[in-house]
Amino acid sequence: MKIDAAFVTKILCGFIREELHKFGYKKGLLGLSGGLDSSVCATLAARALGPKNVVGAILPYKNSFRLDVRHARRLAERLGIRYLVIDISPMIDAYFSRYPTDNNIRIGNKMARERMSILYDLSVIEKALILGTSNKTELLIGYGTIHGDMACAINPLGDLYKTQIYALAAYLKVPATIRKKKPTAGLWPGQTDEGEIGLTYEEIDTILFELVDGRKSVEDLVRAGFSRQNVERIAGMIRNSEFKRKMPPIAKISGRTVGHDFLYSYDRNR
Amino acid sequence: MKIDAAFVTKILCGFIREELHKFGYKKGLLGLSGGLDSSVCATLAARALGPKNVVGAILPYKNSFRLDVRHARRLAERLGIRYLVIDISPMIDAYFSRYPTDNNIRIGNKMARERMSILYDLSVIEKALILGTSNKTELLIGYGTIHGDMACAINPLGDLYKTQIYALAAYLKVPATIRKKKPTAGLWPGQTDEGEIGLTYEEIDTILFELVDGRKSVEDLVRAGFSRQNVERIAGMIRNSEFKRKMPPIAKISGRTVGHDFLYSYDRNR
Repeated sequence: MKIDAAFVTKILCGFIREELHKFGYKKGLLGLSGGLDSSVCATLAARALGPKNVVGAILPYKNSFRLDVRHARRLAERLGIRYLVIDISPMIDAYFSRYPTDNNIRIGNKMARERMSILYDLSVIEKALILGTSNKTELLIGYGTIHGDMACAINPLGDLYKTQIYALAAYLKVPATIRKKKPTAGLWPGQTDEGEIGLTYEEIDTILFELVDGRKSVEDLVRAGFSRQNVERIAGMIRNSEFKRKMPPIAKISGRTVGHDFLYSYDRNR
Repeated sequence: MKIDAAFVTKILCGFIREELHKFGYKKGLLGLSGGLDSSVCATLAARALGPKNVVGAILPYKNSFRLDVRHARRLAERLGIRYLVIDISPMIDAYFSRYPTDNNIRIGNKMARERMSILYDLSVIEKALILGTSNKTELLIGYGTIHGDMACAINPLGDLYKTQIYALAAYLKVPATIRKKKPTAGLWPGQTDEGEIGLTYEEIDTILFELVDGRKSVEDLVRAGFSRQNVERIAGMIRNSEFKRKMPPIAKISGRTVGHDFLYSYDRNR
């Protein structure tokens, strides 16, 4: 679990630069929540592309999470990247005022998808590729909105567990105010990821690391002293979120089907 | 290119049923545009699941495409499936009234993503999986909005070219009013797919079939008498839309990375 932060930074900056250039882009665009992951991603992008080639989009709902919005602004100013603020509440309220709900998950998902939709629209205006900020923990347990915050062109952070992102953030000198906050998906005021999931990130990551990277089974972990309940819970989250990590299955009819056996543009480098 | 429509219907109905049940769902949900693909998909779903287990969402922008909305309503009534109508204009206008543009592609993409966002919200209320309606032609040339109309849980139509969907529609007795209309992405009144792409679906599909299913090269097709300009154009569209058919690349750091070598939940059938 321990990472060589300097080496990882070098790899990730190279990835951002090369992938962007491969697609013919110079600029990267990302949503800034004021949280850890987007702050780390913005810092890496500014290093990789130069601050002038990074655009941050701060996309708050009304005045909620004002402190996070302030952190996002300050980070952008500190990095010297351009940023813009778009309030998503007119679009969200236009929907839920007509179809009211008190289901915070539904509201949170609609917000995540509105932010995606705005980011993709901005990517056309800015001629920029969208940088994803989903980390390995979120991707594996499915703690993210499909076609929402999980949507991006390239994802520099997807192979780093949340606890590894903390280490990287410290190396990159991301402000302590951001590093010390409790991670939150911003579903409602006071919500925290760890409170909602019911386990700390350290507990989750340790189990994920054993199951995924260590290729251990649930029984192996129980024998090694882990709580059966926690391990089965995490293994279940991996299984149940598989659909978020894959393209939708297509019914196979022909000899060459998108996603089955037409997997790449065979004449890409023609 | 010729299909055995009865056999294909059997395969696709089995696919819809099995995939839904695998995920623990009984109901299917899809957007109904009044066009060919969603009408064929709704007809297949009604056969596969029973009309009571299919929900159609008609998601118009204001009063545009009134004829298509009428066709969608009539189809739903004819199939005996439940449907609802949600006007997307309050959400779309909330955005573009603040950030105006005359770029129809940007407006069309925002609309497609709003429809996706509403479909995913409805899927929670209805406890239903979203059935995709992107056909093989659209998927290969990238004629669709990523995280918009391309988003779904399962896609029954993705291995059938547009011209094959016509044959299937005739077999399924989809009303002639729907089968005879010019296909349109509905980007603006009077827009047609063929007009915008500059080639007929028959021309596109013939070239795609040779390149993809026939594994021919551009040079092969030129030698066989195809227009070089058209073939290179289609081959370029396949290449440039590859990103729409794939999950975003994740920078590889660890020994087991989502999308690289963590490809399935190895204990799924535990």
